[in-house]
Amino acid sequence: MPIPAPVLTPPFNILRLSHVEFGVTDLAASRKFYTDILGLQVTDEDADTVYMRAMEERGHHCLILKKKPEAGIDYLSYKVFSEEELDKAAAYFEGMGKPVSWVERPYQGRTMRTEDCFGAPMEFYFKMDRLAPIHQKYELYRGVKPLRIDHFNCFVPNVDTAVEWYGKLGFRVTEYTEDAETGNLWAAWTHRKGGVHDIAFTNGTGPRLHHTAFWVPTPLNIIDLLDLMATTGYVGNIERGPGRHGISNAFFLYILDPDGHQIEIYCSDYQTVDPDHEAIKWDLKDPQRQTLWGSPAPRSWFEHGSVFTGVDTRPADLKASPIIAP
Amino acid sequence: MPIPAPVLTPPFNILRLSHVEFGVTDLAASRKFYTDILGLQVTDEDADTVYMRAMEERGHHCLILKKKPEAGIDYLSYKVFSEEELDKAAAYFEGMGKPVSWVERPYQGRTMRTEDCFGAPMEFYFKMDRLAPIHQKYELYRGVKPLRIDHFNCFVPNVDTAVEWYGKLGFRVTEYTEDAETGNLWAAWTHRKGGVHDIAFTNGTGPRLHHTAFWVPTPLNIIDLLDLMATTGYVGNIERGPGRHGISNAFFLYILDPDGHQIEIYCSDYQTVDPDHEAIKWDLKDPQRQTLWGSPAPRSWFEHGSVFTGVDTRPADLKASPIIAP
Amino acid sequence: MPIPAPVLTPPFNILRLSHVEFGVTDLAASRKFYTDILGLQVTDEDADTVYMRAMEERGHHCLILKKKPEAGIDYLSYKVFSEEELDKAAAYFEGMGKPVSWVERPYQGRTMRTEDCFGAPMEFYFKMDRLAPIHQKYELYRGVKPLRIDHFNCFVPNVDTAVEWYGKLGFRVTEYTEDAETGNLWAAWTHRKGGVHDIAFTNGTGPRLHHTAFWVPTPLNIIDLLDLMATTGYVGNIERGPGRHGISNAFFLYILDPDGHQIEIYCSDYQTVDPDHEAIKWDLKDPQRQTLWGSPAPRSWFEHGSVFTGVDTRPADLKASPIIAP
Amino acid sequence: MPIPAPVLTPPFNILRLSHVEFGVTDLAASRKFYTDILGLQVTDEDADTVYMRAMEERGHHCLILKKKPEAGIDYLSYKVFSEEELDKAAAYFEGMGKPVSWVERPYQGRTMRTEDCFGAPMEFYFKMDRLAPIHQKYELYRGVKPLRIDHFNCFVPNVDTAVEWYGKLGFRVTEYTEDAETGNLWAAWTHRKGGVHDIAFTNGTGPRLHHTAFWVPTPLNIIDLLDLMATTGYVGNIERGPGRHGISNAFFLYILDPDGHQIEIYCSDYQTVDPDHEAIKWDLKDPQRQTLWGSPAPRSWFEHGSVFTGVDTRPADLKASPIIAP
Repeated sequence: MPIPAPVLTPPFNILRLSHVEFGVTDLAASRKFYTDILGLQVTDEDADTVYMRAMEERGHHCLILKKKPEAGIDYLSYKVFSEEELDKAAAYFEGMGKPVSWVERPYQGRTMRTEDCFGAPMEFYFKMDRLAPIHQKYELYRGVKPLRIDHFNCFVPNVDTAVEWYGKLGFRVTEYTEDAETGNLWAAWTHRKGGVHDIAFTNGTGPRLHHTAFWVPTPLNIIDLLDLMATTGYVGNIERGPGRHGISNAFFLYILDPDGHQIEIYCSDYQTVDPDHEAIKWDLKDPQRQTLWGSPAPRSWFEHGSVFTGVDTRPADLKASPIIAP
Repeated sequence: MPIPAPVLTPPFNILRLSHVEFGVTDLAASRKFYTDILGLQVTDEDADTVYMRAMEERGHHCLILKKKPEAGIDYLSYKVFSEEELDKAAAYFEGMGKPVSWVERPYQGRTMRTEDCFGAPMEFYFKMDRLAPIHQKYELYRGVKPLRIDHFNCFVPNVDTAVEWYGKLGFRVTEYTEDAETGNLWAAWTHRKGGVHDIAFTNGTGPRLHHTAFWVPTPLNIIDLLDLMATTGYVGNIERGPGRHGISNAFFLYILDPDGHQIEIYCSDYQTVDPDHEAIKWDLKDPQRQTLWGSPAPRSWFEHGSVFTGVDTRPADLKASPIIAP
Repeated sequence: MPIPAPVLTPPFNILRLSHVEFGVTDLAASRKFYTDILGLQVTDEDADTVYMRAMEERGHHCLILKKKPEAGIDYLSYKVFSEEELDKAAAYFEGMGKPVSWVERPYQGRTMRTEDCFGAPMEFYFKMDRLAPIHQKYELYRGVKPLRIDHFNCFVPNVDTAVEWYGKLGFRVTEYTEDAETGNLWAAWTHRKGGVHDIAFTNGTGPRLHHTAFWVPTPLNIIDLLDLMATTGYVGNIERGPGRHGISNAFFLYILDPDGHQIEIYCSDYQTVDPDHEAIKWDLKDPQRQTLWGSPAPRSWFEHGSVFTGVDTRPADLKASPIIAP
Repeated sequence: MPIPAPVLTPPFNILRLSHVEFGVTDLAASRKFYTDILGLQVTDEDADTVYMRAMEERGHHCLILKKKPEAGIDYLSYKVFSEEELDKAAAYFEGMGKPVSWVERPYQGRTMRTEDCFGAPMEFYFKMDRLAPIHQKYELYRGVKPLRIDHFNCFVPNVDTAVEWYGKLGFRVTEYTEDAETGNLWAAWTHRKGGVHDIAFTNGTGPRLHHTAFWVPTPLNIIDLLDLMATTGYVGNIERGPGRHGISNAFFLYILDPDGHQIEIYCSDYQTVDPDHEAIKWDLKDPQRQTLWGSPAPRSWFEHGSVFTGVDTRPADLKASPIIAP
């Protein structure tokens, strides 16, 4: 079916993706990975938790590591425009019968928790502690020199359902892959903040988080990270790339953290603030949508994802041969 | 005086800066400069007019060259969210006693013309012809490989006035320079689209357009442009740079077109979509606000600007020694 | 067996690799590939032949395309220090019973032809027409912006034999791969001009030319070439990369011309002018020698090569499983 | 007068520039500058001396800092091909009446000290301790990520004399600036190792060392260094750049160490191994020879240099207006 018309006046105003909490089994190992190798900055920590931000961010955290007996994704979090919009959000989800609760999150104002159409946990807040700028403290830059969190990418069992459900929240499609034979969506990229995506959806057993992406300015930052990982014991954590996606035109690299949570390093993007910005359609059979330069992704890249803590998954509704997946 | 609080629910919704029309005295020379050297793509042209867009833009034009007996800036144009917002805009300006007229602009829907607090011509529209994407047609990339128009920068005789007036339209300040002795604004950067600026204001004889900026992804694109200009007869058109601004953290280059209209090539930026994004204050006496690396701009850079066609200018209210200007 | 001691006072003075002549079946298609896509400059041409040079070269040609009924490599050519050294070279090869002939080569002075230990044709000359510099004519730069020819890489049936034979000509080993089980060389990189290599040898059916390399300054040039090839009908000509070799530390890309002659784009290198520069040994079982970042090369990369016109090949003496090859 | 014909069979074989010893007044401050900021690696140190190398070098040191009551340059050092060549060198300098002595230098074999035609101290050695490669230990890279020492640049009172004297040692001219009115050389770049220069000479009060250059692979390394220096208290140590020289085509940056010893960061170069490589002539009146992009160097850059310890200087024979100097 065709992608739905964009909802330009959504029921409440989500500004952007904000942060994610990863359950990790070895906090010290994960902290090392995200700070020494990736280059995030620790903004607070205790025995069980590490808060981090990227170099241009003023909000207190874009990534939280939480020590857990098993690895998983605790929740994806979004920032809304104002406290009023937060209350509208709560009313909206209550109105559709979703569980709504208010949770305590350090460094954040009132925070509401609910779940998406597949049961994946979502949190919304309107206020977070603001920190002094560090984007010009160049002595702090390390690793890939990450500037900001860019997007989430999730496996979902039905992409049409995801695009419709998130679309009603105001997430607009920028690019998508259609299975020409069935007319179903295979994957879709949707945004709130004016870039290619805040969250993307891919057909697969889900809900699971496929990856979390951080934005860097040039491909050379990615090459620096590859050289560093390859010579400091992390060569096995390099999953795919570098390469350029046809979709989004991004220069990319995929790496795995010590628990297998996947991180994309994402470079280049384009502006999508126009409400009449047309989505770009890709054919599922076009291999250049995945890699513009032609080299295929490893099979593990199509299958590996992180489960949401305590959330059951179900297989994808659409099936496809590994050759065209996804 | 302090910068005004951001107006988060403006009277109408301006999405972003859109385009500018340059009056040029030698259309062929200007066309060559903007296409062969800078790398913009011609989308239409006739004997008197050339329409161009940058590589990631889908709108029909971001720059219009119009043959004129004298060089000047015909207007700055902005895109609003919808036709309804356009009508609200007209009502708003009429309500404040500004001249409002409806003008025919090829490839655009209904277009409204008015002027700002200093008499500079502004145009607003909600719809422009959309063209097929070319950002992946790499054989078309030339020159500095410009991806999109990024911002305008204007000389105005009173920056406090400009920031207040544009602030009421919803332009939010991201960075600003204050004269610590008087408390007056010396310069300010304001945005709509979620980056550092759509339009900036600098103290000086005005209103005049100081420069129009195009965004490129890496400093190497700027170095390529410098090498090309330096060896194709355009070395005299290189005005300032390359360097990094303290303000905005941008890697920059300033060049002059054949009529002296100034273009900035602008690289790197940061996201400002949060409504609680704090503006960064710079002291007028801090030379690193202008050039983080310390080398001063040439005096001509502080003084040169393009007049708006038919619009009178007046001297700046604030005076300063050349050493700290601007 | 260990690599031989470097011969520091060879029987004649080879300065560097100079050029190669490719037999091509469709001259127009090959010319387009090397000029429009790769970015070499044509220095002369007629109905059957195209001469080209790279951007920093002053010699008339580094690549000659010759129309032939079948694709092949006509010869590899080297420049010697002086006419006296050329005569010494002729005497040297005659002394070892190799066929020596004097051939007419346009734009070159006296040119001597012989063959190496596996029958691969080699040519030597001391003088070539010199052209005006173009390295600062930036409007001419295209494609990957190749600066100079860098090296040849050949499949040979016995790398120990190759290293010993070329070593006597003064080619010094900079890096090598050893089969730890047998002590035999699997591959070796040897130089004359003070970089990592002028010619490298890899175990395989030979003699065949595996690839010819051109030097570019930054990885971004390679990314530009990938984007261009991927969107102009050459995506199938991308063979391997981009990536970084453990050996030589080069950022690389391998592409195939219309006849399947392989070209490496090679970025970064290091100086090796010291006569006591120690060769770096790699273990055949270490996958990072091939790709520092861990991703394997496609099998075709290990097997594909261009035959020398009219020269028989024989299988490699050493056998290895595809997993560790080469 | 015209530049002399290259001496292709010099009296002894100098391989390349090797290292320099700087007299510094605050060893800790200088060590910090060269390691934390520039990114050199300490290979040994004691209370009075710090030895350093760049990232691709295998020799023990390319820069020695020696604590002294006054800043100065103790000597420039060159590596010769073999011990036999070292003895030939001693005989050569003795034959021309220069003082020749044998000095003890830690980590080096026999080392000979003499002086050039203006009294500047030169040292020659054939053997230095070799260290394990670190060019792939990417966690060690810092600052500008310097790969190797590239060249010296000296003020001399007569460039014609310098070029003739060094030319007899085998230094070949690659580019030069001529005063068209007098036919005298204003500046010259001469090499041994196959690049644009090992040592350059500029007209001025001398002998003095104008700068020592380190090679880096891309302009982005230089931009990283500028950002780091500008935000860690070293903005005043940025002397000139970034820019591109017409001569040598290098992308450059000049910085000053805590004692005012000048360092060039040098990016891009070209191969000059051919004995018939023609030198490029520049006119003294052509401003693009200094900066291809047109912006002038600060006057201090034309005048500032480091004296050689204990060596008298004399004014330049040629005089020129500051406008065209040098």
